[in-house]
Amino acid sequence: MLDDTIAAIATAPGEAGIGIVRLSGPMSIAILDQIFVPSKGKSIKDFPSRRFTHGYIVDPYTKNRIDEVLVVYMKGPYTYTAEDVAEIDCHGGIVPVRKILEIVLRMGARIAEPGEFTKRAFLNGRIDLAQAEAVMDVISAKTEKGFDIALGQLEGTLSREVKRIRNDILEMIAHITVNIDFPDEDIEQITYEKLEKQGEKIMKEIEDLLSTAHTGKIMREGLKTVIVGKPNVGKSSLLNALLKEARAIVTEIPGTTRDVIEEYVNIQGIPLNIVDTAGIRETEDLVEKIGVEKSKEFFNKADLIIFVLNASEPFTEEDLQIIELVKDRDAIILLNKTDLPMVLDEEDLRKMLPGKKIIKISILENIGLQELEETIVQMVYGGEVKHKHYSLVTNVRHQNALERAKKNMEDAIKAIQRNMPLDFVEVDVKNCWENLGEITGDTVDEDIIDRIFANFCLGK
Amino acid sequence: MLDDTIAAIATAPGEAGIGIVRLSGPMSIAILDQIFVPSKGKSIKDFPSRRFTHGYIVDPYTKNRIDEVLVVYMKGPYTYTAEDVAEIDCHGGIVPVRKILEIVLRMGARIAEPGEFTKRAFLNGRIDLAQAEAVMDVISAKTEKGFDIALGQLEGTLSREVKRIRNDILEMIAHITVNIDFPDEDIEQITYEKLEKQGEKIMKEIEDLLSTAHTGKIMREGLKTVIVGKPNVGKSSLLNALLKEARAIVTEIPGTTRDVIEEYVNIQGIPLNIVDTAGIRETEDLVEKIGVEKSKEFFNKADLIIFVLNASEPFTEEDLQIIELVKDRDAIILLNKTDLPMVLDEEDLRKMLPGKKIIKISILENIGLQELEETIVQMVYGGEVKHKHYSLVTNVRHQNALERAKKNMEDAIKAIQRNMPLDFVEVDVKNCWENLGEITGDTVDEDIIDRIFANFCLGK
Repeated sequence: MLDDTIAAIATAPGEAGIGIVRLSGPMSIAILDQIFVPSKGKSIKDFPSRRFTHGYIVDPYTKNRIDEVLVVYMKGPYTYTAEDVAEIDCHGGIVPVRKILEIVLRMGARIAEPGEFTKRAFLNGRIDLAQAEAVMDVISAKTEKGFDIALGQLEGTLSREVKRIRNDILEMIAHITVNIDFPDEDIEQITYEKLEKQGEKIMKEIEDLLSTAHTGKIMREGLKTVIVGKPNVGKSSLLNALLKEARAIVTEIPGTTRDVIEEYVNIQGIPLNIVDTAGIRETEDLVEKIGVEKSKEFFNKADLIIFVLNASEPFTEEDLQIIELVKDRDAIILLNKTDLPMVLDEEDLRKMLPGKKIIKISILENIGLQELEETIVQMVYGGEVKHKHYSLVTNVRHQNALERAKKNMEDAIKAIQRNMPLDFVEVDVKNCWENLGEITGDTVDEDIIDRIFANFCLGK
Repeated sequence: MLDDTIAAIATAPGEAGIGIVRLSGPMSIAILDQIFVPSKGKSIKDFPSRRFTHGYIVDPYTKNRIDEVLVVYMKGPYTYTAEDVAEIDCHGGIVPVRKILEIVLRMGARIAEPGEFTKRAFLNGRIDLAQAEAVMDVISAKTEKGFDIALGQLEGTLSREVKRIRNDILEMIAHITVNIDFPDEDIEQITYEKLEKQGEKIMKEIEDLLSTAHTGKIMREGLKTVIVGKPNVGKSSLLNALLKEARAIVTEIPGTTRDVIEEYVNIQGIPLNIVDTAGIRETEDLVEKIGVEKSKEFFNKADLIIFVLNASEPFTEEDLQIIELVKDRDAIILLNKTDLPMVLDEEDLRKMLPGKKIIKISILENIGLQELEETIVQMVYGGEVKHKHYSLVTNVRHQNALERAKKNMEDAIKAIQRNMPLDFVEVDVKNCWENLGEITGDTVDEDIIDRIFANFCLGK
């Protein structure tokens, strides 16, 4: 499988200064040699590994110049994929990278699947699976905090933690095995009590890791937020105020460009992913829009709902409808237009939405936005989790593996407490050990690996 | 002005394998040295110029790692800008490049203006102005043909041609000057006849260049095309058929993402820029839409109008309205749905739209699309221009300079024919020489230069 040479465009599409086509595999340097004519010297092979060299990509059959480029090749194994790698830096834009990719493929490279470079780094043992997944998180990070966490994982913070726990589990397994295999020996007479202590220490470690998952997921994927409210209460102004203040990153969901735009607002490091369904900006008719299938879906999936009311008017039928929709959800209630005389009955509102945070704001006069931000931060970090330690678990797959590991260790501890035969305990503990191995990729199926890398972007 | 060091993100924004931050100027290497910690060795200065080196970008104050990177520096003058250049290849995505750009700026670099790297290449004399402009054309090329033309200009094809003509003009000026300064001398007694011949040769050369401008502009900017027709005649199907067949490149006009989408369809190397105003795809109501300001603007600006009629129905009032709109325009008339019995009166149509090309098609049965493509190709290349030679002039600024040069040479020739004093002739010929110098940047104002580079993308 790793005998072939893969190639892909490694830079984002669009008009820019530089575009890069990258190759990895045993034929990388030979392919580069066939299509590259240096401006000085005869062949790329006249230049050492890692030397950035100027010249031209030339079609070897037609002798036509394809583009003026800088190229570099790097001999493995100290490369990204641990294989021979070649990079062609050409003019940015859509045509040059595509033309160069085409000629590279004609010379015998195969087009890389999404994430295949990183997959090779994993399969060649340069990084583990959690680190490979962190690569994509680094690339898709929405805020600096999210980026820092992903970079930490790439450098192995999560992997080290998981390996530490797995070592503890291995020790526990060793103790159990010794007692199963040599039940009468006097090597180290373990007692059920001792085993229980070991098990509980491991449980605690797994739970500590899991406790970071809530914040971690938000850091990675953003807090899905929807702004609701009847027409003309200030939803658009709120969105614009948040966007302006927080240096927004606007990205589009590929393939659905015209339907939905996600806007990322950075609230003190928390990426607020405000889904701008057709409703919020273009029309003011969100109440009706919620009836529409797509808006409904976003509304239902939202982690946080920001409900805007006009404080200078009495409740309307529409307000009451929305109150019904948000009352069982994580929601922040904003009373806007408090620069005008207050007409809305706040007491009534509190009764209809008990326990919900209500903030008086005036977007016009820039009052209350700071409190809104602080409320969001508090809701995300919660009480306990806050400042506990760095969010180590950001990935649902890791969270899921940890939850299964926790369940298995719980079962093991129960079996110990009931003085069940050690063979039973051993099965649960071994399962726990395997669950955690899935995170680093030590114990994971090939099709799971394939599925993980399929979510990568092209060229990485 | 060139004492400072500039920096910018050189890759397109988006999630991708690699992002690049580039620096140029005297401080480039010193700045890189302050923020880069190689994985082996102590400092980037331990490595030679052009050596691709692995390590980390580290904040020199907080000592925090910013990202894992590959860096390279290149000592001037054999670089893109002819200055010292440094490149930092980091993880793709929005955050890493921004964080690295921020720290580079904190270390004393200045954010580069659009096109400033290329402007420096020009100001430092590495390339002329026409070559600098070709850089942007290379990047924004929509088809391979457009790219090849731009690459040729970047390599100096247009510049060489212009310089050749300017040399001829210089010779003419020399002859005039000799006769003005030494009217009685016998060095080389030029006659008005000889001067006229020289002038006409130059005229011919200028006209030859200008004759490529029509095709050139289309190659560069695309043939602006609008599809019109009443509802349900097959406009969307036509667009989709063209898109499917021709490997479309869809780009968005920055800043107007939600209003207008341009689709580039590659018709035998000709970039057809089909403007998809809100009308064509979403609603079928283009006749009404033409009333809308924006659609009207696109309709009026279009180079080519494709008018689709339903051949299986008689004319309607809407058809007649559109006939009125297209009759004085470059238009191709498509009679669609010819798989059904023909009802529309083709003779009537010919009378109402005399001289227009009418093609019978059936998008459903894929009939006639080939003829449509060939008709478009023929309209673009015309009779005379076709295969004459490569499109050398693609840029409106160059075309304009050539037109003024032509006008001045015409005036010179007229003056010669009337035996006007040589001083008069000299003024026109010198103007002509200066006009052509604007193309290569030998004779051009600083604010024109600024305006040219302001149209570049960032990071180039």
